[in-house]
Amino acid sequence: MRIPILKLKDYLLVSIQVELDDQTVLTFQEDLLDKIKATSAKGVVIDLTSVDMVDSFIAKVLGDVIVMTSLMGTKSVVTGIQPAVAITLIELGITLDNVHTALDLEQGISILSQLLEV
Amino acid sequence: MRIPILKLKDYLLVSIQVELDDQTVLTFQEDLLDKIKATSAKGVVIDLTSVDMVDSFIAKVLGDVIVMTSLMGTKSVVTGIQPAVAITLIELGITLDNVHTALDLEQGISILSQLLEV
Repeated sequence: MRIPILKLKDYLLVSIQVELDDQTVLTFQEDLLDKIKATSAKGVVIDLTSVDMVDSFIAKVLGDVIVMTSLMGTKSVVTGIQPAVAITLIELGITLDNVHTALDLEQGISILSQLLEV
Repeated sequence: MRIPILKLKDYLLVSIQVELDDQTVLTFQEDLLDKIKATSAKGVVIDLTSVDMVDSFIAKVLGDVIVMTSLMGTKSVVTGIQPAVAITLIELGITLDNVHTALDLEQGISILSQLLEV
């Protein structure tokens, strides 16, 4: 099962709307990095609006992929983190310190354009 | 298997990046119409860049969904139809007469905004 990655101008948009299992999230990590390279994308928005629950492995892989995109020179914004997911992340000790977040996809894109203007 | 539908401002974006089978495409039809109602979206872009092949059933369902969205008062643009898919559609006698098409997602969105300005 693959998570679709949309290219829109200089950005990649990802809306995770499937049940995340370990393999899906690892495939997604690889796909996203490959797609950044292939498209020379300047920014990524990962929308978690439809994700109701994460476990520690999935949270770690998602956290890692943000750091990886940043290593590749791309800005990332995570949007739509649900209350239950926010609670889980803190309980797991994952604070996503340097990750930009926003309420929804639109706001994520507008934050990205601000980040990329600077 | 569900095809993710992204809401971006007044538009819904759909990038079909999975193997389409009969059930998936029927579920998609229903999901898209529901989402149009739920979000009051004014326009839809359906991106077929990653679709390499369609059969007559899938082509018919996709054609139907465009007409349905139009009945609901929404403009739709289909983007990224691959050469092989275009050939299949014509061989099947499906000409998508009143459907707006464009090369990729970005152009689809710009056509939508033109359509909605008028």
